[in-house]
Amino acid sequence: MNVVNVINEINSQTEQGITEVYLVACGGSLVDMYPAKYFLESEAKKVVTGLYTANEFVHATPKRLNQDSLVIVCSHGGNTAESVNAAKVAKEHSAHTIGLTHNKDAALNEHSDYVFLYEWGEDSDVKNNPMAIILQLVVEVLNATEGYSDYEAFQSGIEKINGIIKKGEQQVADRTKEFAEKYKDEELFYVLSSGASYGHAYGFAICSLMEMQWLNAASIHSGEYFHGPFEVTDKETPFILLMNEGRTRALDERAKTFLLEYGEKVEIVDAKELGINTIADEVVEFFNPILFYSIMCVYRAALAEVRNHPLETRRYMGKVSY
Amino acid sequence: MNVVNVINEINSQTEQGITEVYLVACGGSLVDMYPAKYFLESEAKKVVTGLYTANEFVHATPKRLNQDSLVIVCSHGGNTAESVNAAKVAKEHSAHTIGLTHNKDAALNEHSDYVFLYEWGEDSDVKNNPMAIILQLVVEVLNATEGYSDYEAFQSGIEKINGIIKKGEQQVADRTKEFAEKYKDEELFYVLSSGASYGHAYGFAICSLMEMQWLNAASIHSGEYFHGPFEVTDKETPFILLMNEGRTRALDERAKTFLLEYGEKVEIVDAKELGINTIADEVVEFFNPILFYSIMCVYRAALAEVRNHPLETRRYMGKVSY
Repeated sequence: MNVVNVINEINSQTEQGITEVYLVACGGSLVDMYPAKYFLESEAKKVVTGLYTANEFVHATPKRLNQDSLVIVCSHGGNTAESVNAAKVAKEHSAHTIGLTHNKDAALNEHSDYVFLYEWGEDSDVKNNPMAIILQLVVEVLNATEGYSDYEAFQSGIEKINGIIKKGEQQVADRTKEFAEKYKDEELFYVLSSGASYGHAYGFAICSLMEMQWLNAASIHSGEYFHGPFEVTDKETPFILLMNEGRTRALDERAKTFLLEYGEKVEIVDAKELGINTIADEVVEFFNPILFYSIMCVYRAALAEVRNHPLETRRYMGKVSY
Repeated sequence: MNVVNVINEINSQTEQGITEVYLVACGGSLVDMYPAKYFLESEAKKVVTGLYTANEFVHATPKRLNQDSLVIVCSHGGNTAESVNAAKVAKEHSAHTIGLTHNKDAALNEHSDYVFLYEWGEDSDVKNNPMAIILQLVVEVLNATEGYSDYEAFQSGIEKINGIIKKGEQQVADRTKEFAEKYKDEELFYVLSSGASYGHAYGFAICSLMEMQWLNAASIHSGEYFHGPFEVTDKETPFILLMNEGRTRALDERAKTFLLEYGEKVEIVDAKELGINTIADEVVEFFNPILFYSIMCVYRAALAEVRNHPLETRRYMGKVSY
């Protein structure tokens, strides 16, 4: 599947071009969609976007959904009932659907006009992973419908990001072991970020810490931190701050200053220090979460190792009925 | 200020009607905007909406912002720097601005084309509090621009909700004391909800628990709970579930079933049991969060009392520079 061809084909089947893009999934797959939501909300003058956890899209389907809408649904295993239903609902409203999954026999595929069977695992180039594919899809939507002046810079970023990540992973290898040793007995973490990466702060909290490590966790938007959450800051409470490069860096820097003054257990993961700046200024902010996902996988692996709690361990997911 | 007149006046000053509504604030004021975001995303076929923490709106201003946009900014004290700046940015982009505040001398007012000096406190009718005013404003926008078929049912709900709340507050008085006694030594709470009330689950976590009680807390969308977060469920971890009436109730019911099976410290606050059903089915879901806000104020007051931690106590907010 080629993102350019798919979007051009869908766009040509609409009356006046794609008018809205719905991003619908659950948990980790929803996290992968957040950068695309942020991108369209920031850059589009016409195309509308909406990000939905799948079951809310099914039960409270937006009235705007129509035959010129594009609904992108992502499910790693491809059989998540709510996500499959969401794609079905989209088709019942005559919308165009794109499914992303790692399973060629997924039930999701039955309701997807186009299926991206994406690559997964450490050997894959991140541009072929769902987060980057979804971002590329919405970039194509914007470019096809109203034009995107930074299109070339974005494409150049897509070619660069995997190399930046490979270097970054080596750069953090030792410090993730120190992190794991230092925090191995903690029971709760707050994860802060902003801009395109806020979704990944949420993702690291709910997937990496809650689901995979059974640790308490919560994401906090760096901008919201000062309007309530910061009152829990003390020398005992661990905070992880994902610092973006780009327009919202000022928000993360403000959180950093406060955390270093009043907190003590503060882990800073800085996209700028990790070399993301070789991507052009106009588009760099959209690539932060792609970098953070891979880098934070190194952190969580180190934590899992020292805690002797393998990342695959579940007590409920796929084990009991719910 | 009259919501109908204000919106009609603004709408008449636009070229083709208000094309988008941006809801911009910080912390508790942002929470008050969530039902309006949910309403427009659900009901509108043309009008676009965006919800922003103020500093992100300032630093990553959406390119869509234009002279036909309406930007609603809310700040209780009216001088929150990020919110004042957001209104200023909106005016620099020639957008229309409405400010909501409890302070007649607020800096926010300088950048607001219209100012709602809202009522506050236990004696006020909730329809005159910011959450309901903002919801009424966007209902008027929808009605003025593309028509809203359930407009009358919505207005009837606005007239009823305060009475429902007054009864509900009495109904929960004893159980909030039991709640406070049972949970007084807990250090962490998860707060679940869905639909229009998700914002209030977030609000109860960040304002009532983190800010006002220095307790660890996180909101979880009832639909997302099963895709990661539920792995932390056990007999020791407290969960508060705000059960909506309306289309997303199924999501909350699913969470309830699981929590009662695998958890033990589970507090359920059910809008249906609290009598919200006297509001018409087509619109009842939008009123859940207005009910929950007032009801959860009784819960937090009981908790503050038994924990001997007054709701006004702060260590950073308004006390140190940040």
